[in-house]
Amino acid sequence: MAWTSLALDLLGVFFFAVSGSLLAVRREFDIVGSLLLGTCVGLGGGILRDVIIDAGVPRAFDSPIYLVPPVVAAVVVYFFAHAVQRFHNLLLTFDAAGMALFSVTGTLVALAAGMNPTAAAILGVVTAVGGGVIRDVVANDVPQIFRARGLYAIPALIGAALTSLASWAGWFGVGTGTAIAAVVFALRMVSLRYRWGAPPAGGHHGTPQLPPAV
Amino acid sequence: MAWTSLALDLLGVFFFAVSGSLLAVRREFDIVGSLLLGTCVGLGGGILRDVIIDAGVPRAFDSPIYLVPPVVAAVVVYFFAHAVQRFHNLLLTFDAAGMALFSVTGTLVALAAGMNPTAAAILGVVTAVGGGVIRDVVANDVPQIFRARGLYAIPALIGAALTSLASWAGWFGVGTGTAIAAVVFALRMVSLRYRWGAPPAGGHHGTPQLPPAV
Amino acid sequence: MAWTSLALDLLGVFFFAVSGSLLAVRREFDIVGSLLLGTCVGLGGGILRDVIIDAGVPRAFDSPIYLVPPVVAAVVVYFFAHAVQRFHNLLLTFDAAGMALFSVTGTLVALAAGMNPTAAAILGVVTAVGGGVIRDVVANDVPQIFRARGLYAIPALIGAALTSLASWAGWFGVGTGTAIAAVVFALRMVSLRYRWGAPPAGGHHGTPQLPPAV
Repeated sequence: MAWTSLALDLLGVFFFAVSGSLLAVRREFDIVGSLLLGTCVGLGGGILRDVIIDAGVPRAFDSPIYLVPPVVAAVVVYFFAHAVQRFHNLLLTFDAAGMALFSVTGTLVALAAGMNPTAAAILGVVTAVGGGVIRDVVANDVPQIFRARGLYAIPALIGAALTSLASWAGWFGVGTGTAIAAVVFALRMVSLRYRWGAPPAGGHHGTPQLPPAV
Repeated sequence: MAWTSLALDLLGVFFFAVSGSLLAVRREFDIVGSLLLGTCVGLGGGILRDVIIDAGVPRAFDSPIYLVPPVVAAVVVYFFAHAVQRFHNLLLTFDAAGMALFSVTGTLVALAAGMNPTAAAILGVVTAVGGGVIRDVVANDVPQIFRARGLYAIPALIGAALTSLASWAGWFGVGTGTAIAAVVFALRMVSLRYRWGAPPAGGHHGTPQLPPAV
Repeated sequence: MAWTSLALDLLGVFFFAVSGSLLAVRREFDIVGSLLLGTCVGLGGGILRDVIIDAGVPRAFDSPIYLVPPVVAAVVVYFFAHAVQRFHNLLLTFDAAGMALFSVTGTLVALAAGMNPTAAAILGVVTAVGGGVIRDVVANDVPQIFRARGLYAIPALIGAALTSLASWAGWFGVGTGTAIAAVVFALRMVSLRYRWGAPPAGGHHGTPQLPPAV
């Protein structure tokens, strides 16, 4: 069971890392930038979570095997960037799967470290979306989740909150975890398909012209 | 007294969070971006400080009540962005109050964690200005304090240094703390009013055309 | 010996800080931005490493003397920006020396904190290149190492890996450390001279037009 969990975790890291390496291609970075950016997105969310819960060395540094998926992703993108491009929908699918998975596992790691249920759910969201935010910030883009196509942070929050709630109520198990991840994944995919989006920050009054805030 | 301190802290978080949510409106982010950006600016400085002093879980995660002000800020901005726009000077005022408050409380938290006086003062500055830097970096802007209107980091440094000095000398108390925060606040407001600014990084020789540094 | 090591470390911090302050001049920041940016690049890599290895307070905060080099750098750049500009090749030389030094010392600090050899080498790279990435991200640029002139991250990785390997094999000493740093330095300088570069992220097929990744 631990092997299944590790394998799924590494798979999630891999698909997130591919998204980082593909962004590196689009921004005309070199192979070093591709590897670094892929590492940021694949491992960044989990490292952020582990630094915050302050429970020793982040697992990505404790277990060197976590470095393998970003390397494989950079190599795959180096040789097959054209092919990967064709599977764009496949990529969105795997990104959604990674996000769904991390929203559940990230919350569990935080609960296991003794965080309260609310903080654990927030950290589940950090794990699920943090890598992508780091990717976009480091590559000098606006984070995609700030104006996402489809819903992204909201399904992650729902998954993390349900995981935290189920654990608190004593209902959590392999079945519950799988069901929650499936709901998160489905919500993400359906929201992409039907172009659902969160409302604008300033409501639907048109965008006011604000002066600088500070 | 602890309640007063918590209330003031939460008020500071709230006004900082409003500045993040207003930036989200100006950049046409959605409500998720508004909430995330407001959280970054309201809680980012304190989280940075707590991660550096390595004294367990950052208090923003330990006490879920810290998540309330950013949510309220995002909701207020969603419904009242137009009204908030009119109170721009009010906002600058409260931002200055938050900065003044955090420069004192941030230093105290670092001292309480056993940091030396110099490091505690630096961490007070990190608490006071860190959230704003994170806000600007994440939103893909140049940090405003790098070319601030009026003085910003300098009053924060003065407040943090005075707090650290007063604690070291055994003079710190409610009265001293209030007086220091008032001085910081006044310096910020006066510098805005009279358009004081720090000198340019390269002196007043005009800006040389430098080649790339690396 | 510890004094030599501290002196070299502070010298590395100083030359990195100069690169941050010079970037501040080019971006027309004020003296506060110059100091903050210089501090980020001089101390950022080491702070990142120390936060990840979770071995208490980062040494930059524990020993206030680490704050001296960024202050000196900001003052030097303020008064002598024009002169520093003429010594651009000198600056690249010292930046390379700092990077070479930090790739060795960063790895040693991580090993001393009990990290496994692979993680220690990665953290050596983080120490050597992290400050520069933080500098570029905070100043709203694309990190230079993502599309570096000459090789940068690769020599750092070679230096960190050799340091980790030599320690593991029991061969590490002052002589070995100096030799490794010299190799890293030479590789960086030679790669600049002969315009070596890493291949592009997407291989040599031309840049495909990819759709957004998420």
